[in-house]
Amino acid sequence: MSLLIKGGKLVNADQSIMADVYCENGLIKAIGHDLDVPSDAEVIDATGKLVMPGGIDPHTHMQLPFMGTVASEDFYSGTSAGLAGGTTMIIDFVIPSPQQPLMEAFNTWKEWASRSVADYSFHVAVTWWDESVSQDMATLVEQEGVNSFKHFMAYKNAIMAEDETLVNSFSRCLELGAMPTVHAENGELVHHLQQKMLSAGITGPEAHPQSRPPEVEGEASNRAIRIAQSIGIPLYLVHVSCKEAIDEIARAKSEGQRVYGECLAGHLELDDSVYKNPDWATAAAHVMSPPFRPKGHQEALWKALQGGTVQTTATDHCCFCEDQKAMGKDNFTQIPNGTAGVEDRLMVLWDSGVNKGRLTENEFVAVTSTNTAKIFNIYPQKGAIAVGSDADLVIWDSTKEHTLSAKTHHQKIDFNIFEGRTVKGSPWITISQGNVVFKDGKLNVVEGAGRYIKRPAFPTIFDAVEKYNEEYGPYQVER
Amino acid sequence: MSLLIKGGKLVNADQSIMADVYCENGLIKAIGHDLDVPSDAEVIDATGKLVMPGGIDPHTHMQLPFMGTVASEDFYSGTSAGLAGGTTMIIDFVIPSPQQPLMEAFNTWKEWASRSVADYSFHVAVTWWDESVSQDMATLVEQEGVNSFKHFMAYKNAIMAEDETLVNSFSRCLELGAMPTVHAENGELVHHLQQKMLSAGITGPEAHPQSRPPEVEGEASNRAIRIAQSIGIPLYLVHVSCKEAIDEIARAKSEGQRVYGECLAGHLELDDSVYKNPDWATAAAHVMSPPFRPKGHQEALWKALQGGTVQTTATDHCCFCEDQKAMGKDNFTQIPNGTAGVEDRLMVLWDSGVNKGRLTENEFVAVTSTNTAKIFNIYPQKGAIAVGSDADLVIWDSTKEHTLSAKTHHQKIDFNIFEGRTVKGSPWITISQGNVVFKDGKLNVVEGAGRYIKRPAFPTIFDAVEKYNEEYGPYQVER
Amino acid sequence: MSLLIKGGKLVNADQSIMADVYCENGLIKAIGHDLDVPSDAEVIDATGKLVMPGGIDPHTHMQLPFMGTVASEDFYSGTSAGLAGGTTMIIDFVIPSPQQPLMEAFNTWKEWASRSVADYSFHVAVTWWDESVSQDMATLVEQEGVNSFKHFMAYKNAIMAEDETLVNSFSRCLELGAMPTVHAENGELVHHLQQKMLSAGITGPEAHPQSRPPEVEGEASNRAIRIAQSIGIPLYLVHVSCKEAIDEIARAKSEGQRVYGECLAGHLELDDSVYKNPDWATAAAHVMSPPFRPKGHQEALWKALQGGTVQTTATDHCCFCEDQKAMGKDNFTQIPNGTAGVEDRLMVLWDSGVNKGRLTENEFVAVTSTNTAKIFNIYPQKGAIAVGSDADLVIWDSTKEHTLSAKTHHQKIDFNIFEGRTVKGSPWITISQGNVVFKDGKLNVVEGAGRYIKRPAFPTIFDAVEKYNEEYGPYQVER
Amino acid sequence: MSLLIKGGKLVNADQSIMADVYCENGLIKAIGHDLDVPSDAEVIDATGKLVMPGGIDPHTHMQLPFMGTVASEDFYSGTSAGLAGGTTMIIDFVIPSPQQPLMEAFNTWKEWASRSVADYSFHVAVTWWDESVSQDMATLVEQEGVNSFKHFMAYKNAIMAEDETLVNSFSRCLELGAMPTVHAENGELVHHLQQKMLSAGITGPEAHPQSRPPEVEGEASNRAIRIAQSIGIPLYLVHVSCKEAIDEIARAKSEGQRVYGECLAGHLELDDSVYKNPDWATAAAHVMSPPFRPKGHQEALWKALQGGTVQTTATDHCCFCEDQKAMGKDNFTQIPNGTAGVEDRLMVLWDSGVNKGRLTENEFVAVTSTNTAKIFNIYPQKGAIAVGSDADLVIWDSTKEHTLSAKTHHQKIDFNIFEGRTVKGSPWITISQGNVVFKDGKLNVVEGAGRYIKRPAFPTIFDAVEKYNEEYGPYQVER
Repeated sequence: MSLLIKGGKLVNADQSIMADVYCENGLIKAIGHDLDVPSDAEVIDATGKLVMPGGIDPHTHMQLPFMGTVASEDFYSGTSAGLAGGTTMIIDFVIPSPQQPLMEAFNTWKEWASRSVADYSFHVAVTWWDESVSQDMATLVEQEGVNSFKHFMAYKNAIMAEDETLVNSFSRCLELGAMPTVHAENGELVHHLQQKMLSAGITGPEAHPQSRPPEVEGEASNRAIRIAQSIGIPLYLVHVSCKEAIDEIARAKSEGQRVYGECLAGHLELDDSVYKNPDWATAAAHVMSPPFRPKGHQEALWKALQGGTVQTTATDHCCFCEDQKAMGKDNFTQIPNGTAGVEDRLMVLWDSGVNKGRLTENEFVAVTSTNTAKIFNIYPQKGAIAVGSDADLVIWDSTKEHTLSAKTHHQKIDFNIFEGRTVKGSPWITISQGNVVFKDGKLNVVEGAGRYIKRPAFPTIFDAVEKYNEEYGPYQVER
Repeated sequence: MSLLIKGGKLVNADQSIMADVYCENGLIKAIGHDLDVPSDAEVIDATGKLVMPGGIDPHTHMQLPFMGTVASEDFYSGTSAGLAGGTTMIIDFVIPSPQQPLMEAFNTWKEWASRSVADYSFHVAVTWWDESVSQDMATLVEQEGVNSFKHFMAYKNAIMAEDETLVNSFSRCLELGAMPTVHAENGELVHHLQQKMLSAGITGPEAHPQSRPPEVEGEASNRAIRIAQSIGIPLYLVHVSCKEAIDEIARAKSEGQRVYGECLAGHLELDDSVYKNPDWATAAAHVMSPPFRPKGHQEALWKALQGGTVQTTATDHCCFCEDQKAMGKDNFTQIPNGTAGVEDRLMVLWDSGVNKGRLTENEFVAVTSTNTAKIFNIYPQKGAIAVGSDADLVIWDSTKEHTLSAKTHHQKIDFNIFEGRTVKGSPWITISQGNVVFKDGKLNVVEGAGRYIKRPAFPTIFDAVEKYNEEYGPYQVER
Repeated sequence: MSLLIKGGKLVNADQSIMADVYCENGLIKAIGHDLDVPSDAEVIDATGKLVMPGGIDPHTHMQLPFMGTVASEDFYSGTSAGLAGGTTMIIDFVIPSPQQPLMEAFNTWKEWASRSVADYSFHVAVTWWDESVSQDMATLVEQEGVNSFKHFMAYKNAIMAEDETLVNSFSRCLELGAMPTVHAENGELVHHLQQKMLSAGITGPEAHPQSRPPEVEGEASNRAIRIAQSIGIPLYLVHVSCKEAIDEIARAKSEGQRVYGECLAGHLELDDSVYKNPDWATAAAHVMSPPFRPKGHQEALWKALQGGTVQTTATDHCCFCEDQKAMGKDNFTQIPNGTAGVEDRLMVLWDSGVNKGRLTENEFVAVTSTNTAKIFNIYPQKGAIAVGSDADLVIWDSTKEHTLSAKTHHQKIDFNIFEGRTVKGSPWITISQGNVVFKDGKLNVVEGAGRYIKRPAFPTIFDAVEKYNEEYGPYQVER
Repeated sequence: MSLLIKGGKLVNADQSIMADVYCENGLIKAIGHDLDVPSDAEVIDATGKLVMPGGIDPHTHMQLPFMGTVASEDFYSGTSAGLAGGTTMIIDFVIPSPQQPLMEAFNTWKEWASRSVADYSFHVAVTWWDESVSQDMATLVEQEGVNSFKHFMAYKNAIMAEDETLVNSFSRCLELGAMPTVHAENGELVHHLQQKMLSAGITGPEAHPQSRPPEVEGEASNRAIRIAQSIGIPLYLVHVSCKEAIDEIARAKSEGQRVYGECLAGHLELDDSVYKNPDWATAAAHVMSPPFRPKGHQEALWKALQGGTVQTTATDHCCFCEDQKAMGKDNFTQIPNGTAGVEDRLMVLWDSGVNKGRLTENEFVAVTSTNTAKIFNIYPQKGAIAVGSDADLVIWDSTKEHTLSAKTHHQKIDFNIFEGRTVKGSPWITISQGNVVFKDGKLNVVEGAGRYIKRPAFPTIFDAVEKYNEEYGPYQVER
């Protein structure tokens, strides 16, 4: 249960240093040179390697029941795949059906997640509203360690939250010290455009991006931001995919509003040409929402990540195999939405980010773990190599080439959106709770070893938010 | 019935020239020097004066039933007041109650308006949706000369149009060749903030601007613009009052979208300090929506008018007297919303616009009449001094000072938001349908002389819009 | 000398009407139906055709001595080619060498231009500064009808104007009521990047765009705009070619500054892939400054034209044939800069603008003639079909296809940057000073028939500018 | 020489924790609870207090020879005043006269600074250019620990750097791994406006802000940013004072460029009404460049600090007393430019930042020390409470009120721009190199105790910059 990593370069968000790391009982116990450690400690020679905080993926959907089927990746296999890619924690989503009590859904998801091999936590979605929802939110925050709530602005006639619900829920979040998050697409327009496509007889995956163009995300992003501004609460936008949304976040930040953005590895790298693939299954395999965007948006996302307009990266990992995607054979609106990536994210980010000079190695750590840990208030338990932090680490070989492929990946899906891409820089060893769980391409995991991580309410920024609202209120209007 | 105006400087939107104008049977018959006119023609010596197209006010509410009372200004008095200020045409609003047939409301308003002393036309509001509304829209466009429909995004639980209605109505407008217009404020947020103010025991007019801060207008402006973009139709935003909304219009225009904005004389000149007036009646007299804005927004509006981001000016003339305003004595949300201005607009615009070098005299004409006539497709019948145009003119004395005041104005309201302001430049003579109806401060009008002006559908820009949608569609998404 | 055009649709910037036009002695004498004209008047049946103001090209360089050679197109051939393309007037540039008296250069150019077959005028460049330049500027404005001065911010060690000269000349323009114009590229950076390319051994045309990337134009545009703002004078930017420059103009306009932009047909349509053509001569034939831009900038320019951020179109017509371009065979900085287009502009603008729904036919007229005439104060002598205007017209066949090619064009150059492009919509007849000078593809011109057009100083906007500077000065700082 | 701080809340940029800190030999030796420390260690009970990294002021001018006089504050008194305000390090400026060798100036300044009581470092200004300057830059970087060079874009006919010098020096910085910094005001325009003011007979301090309006800073900011972009190097803008400059930085960052901004406590809090003070001496005491700005810019700066558009705070501490200011009695351009603040900065930032909810306590640390340490590559030696870091600390009493005043401050100047302002939150104890140098309002300093801090070249971001330039070069153009 004790582990010494020697000779590596420790990379944190704020700096890199040459030092050894000693872990014991799942925690980092010491950092330095010539550390005094037990003689029986396992020793890893990390000379020439980078030691970094394990990745945190703040956006996954393991075994999600969605669109009439269930995501193929479960918590066991999904957290395993994460470890194989250097990701040592996920934050998944509890998504109650409309009218379903939040606590009931939360308990269901917790049960499902108990098989996880790495640590995990939950955002909980607010898909409807009444007084019981408000009360369950308090229970979740105060007793269950949930400090973030998700709102879908898309999926009309299903889980879409109307403006009234957004206003109610954001207000409740402010009272509870929890962060509201949104999937920002205007569900009304998406529905309208979908019907228009179908009426025109366009039923294939190529209709998917056309039915949810960037402006519907731009609209919803701005709406959520303005509602948050009126209520005086921070906001986190998940899977920001296009320039229109980035511009809204940038504007809000320039006006002093506390708005955060997350982008997905897939949106950073792929464009919407994938939907024109003549092979239906290949095109359908890329169907997710928001869709991959026209060329140009990818570079805009990278710039936003470089310049700090968005702060975190994720995957929206949600696996549906070819037979599941086939449910939408005759109607693109029936294709289960989702793509994989929990295993690939860090490698893609390193290769396109660090190798191309868009990110320093420290910025890489910031956007793959530290910023997420800070925003969701589990820093420095997670997201840092520091004495006292959880011993969730990845030892990175920046020279090792690896080819991403469904044939070799550990993700439980028959497709990889990065299929065939060779990256330079990949995990040599992944350490979870102080244990080597992945090494040289092989997993060594224990079902159920993952722990549910409670995230405390009222992160520090809420102190500032309260003072700000008092100073510039009474209606929390930032000017 | 024939009139010669000699020696004046004719000011059109595109240029100014020295020339005489001869009018006959309500139309301009000739422009030039040494015109051959009947010997009995009435002659006006306009030497040293400017002859301009009469103002068009595209946003008035005469005798509007609203918030439990009826606006004090009727069509007779209101169009008279307009003439006294150089405005020779208004476009008023037919506002059906939810579930009321559009045609029924239209006919009611037409009846009311028949007493008008100057020409008028109607926008019709879409406050609800079903198939009959869609059909009545066609009837209005094809048979009644209505080419614009209004949508209120505020006034929850009353006339607010939800996103679904906006999508339906904008789509219908595209088929009919009619312009959608919006009152852009997020009604959900306004409602929320109003309740919050009242809960906090803040019930006076000072709560009015705080319950509808600029961001709620910014949000709704962007939403309407994005919906119009998705549907592929031009859009006109009424009473743009703040920088947040201007920025959204500017962005849309910079991306090639055809978006138009209107600003009010009041918003250009007054700031929100009026709501802090210790005299309740005075503060309440300024209650209108959107409210007057914090200092800084006025200059932003002027810049937008100078730079072409907004193109038209109006007043939202909607008069409620002190006893009516008193309905909200204990609850600011019950104060009837509205202020006057149909008589004052041109003078205020001239004084703050032309005298300060923000506008040329030609730009003054553009923003007070020509642009409105073009956008609503009645150019050059209105908005131009040209052979064949209606003889609706104002002869302007740019040296004449005039003090705006409720004591002297012709508006049927006991308050003037510009009270006591002395402007330099005011109408000497107003001519409607070739008749001198105002001169030297005295009206000479005939009840019912005003005509309902039909506005044809499919203005020229719809040709371009159709080609554009075909070229860049199928979903009319501008990129 | 008298001409009746019957049955056409007259297209002006503000509207289109069906009417006949009668021309006599070079002027438009009457517009209407059943006009009373001399029986011997030549009659053109324009049924089904559009009659529009002839194009004005505000940016040409006929027989320019430049970079050690002289442009192959002279005023005779160049104005002829213009007529063949529907352009009935050019504004060329007098470019004194540093230390050369402005008047001397002006007289040289006037002599050269006397062979023109269509009307012309001159901008005069300020390439250096002393008191004599200041005095010559007055002479040019007050006696020679020059109301615009050009400043090159590029071409270091040649005709580049330093900031000190810009400040002096703009200040002088304000006194004289003349419009300053700029070629906006940072000459210092261009020089630096050119040297860097050459040092790296990159000598071919592919280095041209890399040595003058969009940011050097963005920089210079902003600098010129800020200098104009500080001095309180309007500004006109020639050949705006990239998003960076557009954004600067849009910003300035949004802050109320009077800034105008011109874009070239070439920049609207071509991208920088032309410089990678393996054929040196083809790549070199596209060398002009600013260069054609990476994909994306073209659409941004179109949006700017649609949205009014730029107002005019031109060509920077400056012809160098293959043997001249060969001067830079071993050094791209020695390739004479310039491309043709005076004949092609209107057809390209129509085909990509009107046919695709980006512009209405009225907006087409605005951006090809009317706006230029207004900005340079020759409206409505030029740029309008109106009684009293010059009879410079083009009769447009919107159904006629035409293939642009060096093999068939009238331009005196062995290359056409639009080679092989078939447009729909082209001139059937061009009329200059009331004479049919081009019909069915054939020119019928008279050497020296073109007249020098004087342009009066102090266009109307200078009245507003003066008042504005007084009101918001003393240092003419717009806030 | 050993010191234990017990019971305080340690505030770093990334988090706050409750822990003790043990310092020995000028360094932080241990952080934690129940630390094992020598029995003779001095113990400070910091219960209820915040322990933070001492402030770093990256912009001071001690005993600067400027405008014919010498700043009244020397390095001894200036660093003492800094300590009294919680600032434990300054970065001052070596400013060679044109033609003066850089090394000569550097040695002069080093001599002057040797009296400092706290640590210090130097930026070196590049005020002219030839090969020797290029070589001295290398010497400074490689042997003297200078990793930043300053460029004045203002002060024409004195120390202004022309574009050619900027291009040369920025290119050299890229080779050397040093950060270019700029004072961004267009010196040509300032000169022009100054002459205009003087010609108009306006000679008092009220002319100062009018001769250098925000647009001249906006212009220069953009120019410097564009030059840096073309060369492919990061850039740091000192004393960003207005919205115009902020907007330029925000734009650059949004396009992925690495641009940093610094703002001054004075610019955050004061507006230009100070220049209208009827007392000449009071008005003149505020003369500095850039000047304090019109109302509105202050809030924009705060938003920029909150949103991360600017990252550091400073003072431009440069003291001139009333008799020195009097040199410009008859000519505002002769008033020595400068104001004080090195002692006041942290208190002002805390009071207006943290107390009003604009900044968290962690963000306060980031903008007062950590970010500066990172940008100028002395992190974590400075800017962090971490084992191994210098023991430069401030123990902050967030409840203690303090009134800023020239009567009580330690700054060697007879004026305080924050005169009479009472802040809540101020330093109780300041620790430099492990010694208590300020406590309860009393200094206990040793002349010469301050050390010159070398700053290594090639901070981490230069790795990314190099890769980026390779990837997207060859001309380092970011797209």
